[in-house]
Amino acid sequence: MRQLLYTGPKAVGLTDAAVPAPGAGQVRVDVAYTGICGTDLHIYHGDMDARVRPPATIGHEMSGRIGAVGPGTSEWAVGDPVTVMPLQWCGTCPACRAGHQTICQNLVFIGIDAPGSMQQSWVVPADTLIRLPAGLPLRTAALVEPAAVAVHDVRRASVAAGDPVVVVGGGPVGLLIAVTARQAGGDVLLVEPNAYRRSVAAGLGFAVSDPATSDVTGTVEEWTRGAGARVAFEVSGSAAGVDTAVSVLAVRGRLCLVAIHPVPRSVNLHRFFWRELTLVGARLYERADFEHAVELVVDGTVPADALITHVARLTEADTAFNTLDAGTGVMKVLIDCQA
Amino acid sequence: MRQLLYTGPKAVGLTDAAVPAPGAGQVRVDVAYTGICGTDLHIYHGDMDARVRPPATIGHEMSGRIGAVGPGTSEWAVGDPVTVMPLQWCGTCPACRAGHQTICQNLVFIGIDAPGSMQQSWVVPADTLIRLPAGLPLRTAALVEPAAVAVHDVRRASVAAGDPVVVVGGGPVGLLIAVTARQAGGDVLLVEPNAYRRSVAAGLGFAVSDPATSDVTGTVEEWTRGAGARVAFEVSGSAAGVDTAVSVLAVRGRLCLVAIHPVPRSVNLHRFFWRELTLVGARLYERADFEHAVELVVDGTVPADALITHVARLTEADTAFNTLDAGTGVMKVLIDCQA
Repeated sequence: MRQLLYTGPKAVGLTDAAVPAPGAGQVRVDVAYTGICGTDLHIYHGDMDARVRPPATIGHEMSGRIGAVGPGTSEWAVGDPVTVMPLQWCGTCPACRAGHQTICQNLVFIGIDAPGSMQQSWVVPADTLIRLPAGLPLRTAALVEPAAVAVHDVRRASVAAGDPVVVVGGGPVGLLIAVTARQAGGDVLLVEPNAYRRSVAAGLGFAVSDPATSDVTGTVEEWTRGAGARVAFEVSGSAAGVDTAVSVLAVRGRLCLVAIHPVPRSVNLHRFFWRELTLVGARLYERADFEHAVELVVDGTVPADALITHVARLTEADTAFNTLDAGTGVMKVLIDCQA
Repeated sequence: MRQLLYTGPKAVGLTDAAVPAPGAGQVRVDVAYTGICGTDLHIYHGDMDARVRPPATIGHEMSGRIGAVGPGTSEWAVGDPVTVMPLQWCGTCPACRAGHQTICQNLVFIGIDAPGSMQQSWVVPADTLIRLPAGLPLRTAALVEPAAVAVHDVRRASVAAGDPVVVVGGGPVGLLIAVTARQAGGDVLLVEPNAYRRSVAAGLGFAVSDPATSDVTGTVEEWTRGAGARVAFEVSGSAAGVDTAVSVLAVRGRLCLVAIHPVPRSVNLHRFFWRELTLVGARLYERADFEHAVELVVDGTVPADALITHVARLTEADTAFNTLDAGTGVMKVLIDCQA
């Protein structure tokens, strides 16, 4: 079977490997599609070599069908359509003991810390599987994992009906948060400097604002008649994005921190005090988030056609990475792992 | 009657004024004691002249007795012991309409934005009064207002029984938070560089740590067997204090921001993401906080003897401000407004 190997900064290549056999409690998934996420792009750039240790097979936003079932996994049958919640926790650290397994202090993220899904066949623990409805196209189903991120973020932010919500950052995760927050009853404004991404959001019916040319805080002030936004999501990963997200919030507003900020950021803590704001970090997801994400993909809340801008064969994976890297007219790039 | 006037940076002086008469819905309080708080000290330094506009009478941590009752205030009688919740909200701004009156966007803080209690007689709206039990010494009752701050902070931080709690900053508010968090079931470590303040906290039975000479994060790690603290309070107002408060928290831990940070601070947002931390700003109090604070002062949870280190006459107010300013061997300084 074909397997993609990340071998070092900006270098990926195909290799042939034996079709793996699932052990006890495992299944072999024949991967249909794997999306490239922002973290995969970081890995491709070589920024995470210490953690990933090339050569490595990465990828975790996937869909596929069970290809083989190991001993002791009677719940699953060959042919079942599935996606994977790519987390393995230790069960014994303080976070696990406190019930926060998905933020385990020794968490193994499958696709980063263990081999991922950019290959034709992938062996995973059966308890990571999420069942997909029979009628759901597997191409669309590759969006379940990033949608689960958005579901988790919206839940952490406690978006309620009628809330004015500002999403700072309009890439795939920002857009997924926007649709999920709208589905939860929020009234969403999306802030994004990239014209193409703004046009995608506007096409989905969202109010959009370009932080490079408009006064976002003033816009929100006017929109909310002086109140400010109830919830803001920081999805840009930029210092300016943090400032925007803090400045648009109403008294007792809630900032959900989604993006990874590799360096400390200057934060207006006085405003947190003065307006009694709340900041909540949001990372990954729980099983309930995945299950709700499946529903949102099935019912069309997740706009698959607007999000999936490119599909590449496994043999063209380097082109796929470079397309996403170039960032022009691109949202989500999928790799067709059987092609 | 004697009235203290702040006239400009480091300048206060007494003046004689007519005893004021309460109007409709007002009372005249004959002030017994007024504590000097950190904000009063900022005003004394001239840092808040734009807001205070000298000459001005400041002060808001007070106790006293009703001296006269204006028309339409039948609930109150001359001689009733009281303290004051020194807030007046507009009732019409978005925050008020959302039910957050105590964080009104046009809040008048009596003692800063309107005349305060560093005088023998003070006229206030009757709806700001908080009734005190007859047997409570008025000297001790001057601690109700700062205790209400601590009650509000501990409530915002959701301290629960058994929670390891780190309080960063051991001045009067830090110490009041420590006793209130302990009363709520928290297990408290207090972090403070000043040896005298550490000794006061240690004398009250708290574990203490000197951030200048010890590895606070390592201490908390060991104390909590690798978990981290459930709650941290940032009461120091320093950049280093923010770092400490963030670094000691457990997965899903909660940082309550109490101190005023006049400039933006560098914050490790990656840790907020990675551990799904929460930051909550806490400002002032609500009526329920004041009422609970009265109980904590009455039942001795608030250690009045350890906290009140100095009592000065109104005629010695400049000495009182300078004693607090010098910061040696001092916690709370009260002004006896009748002496």
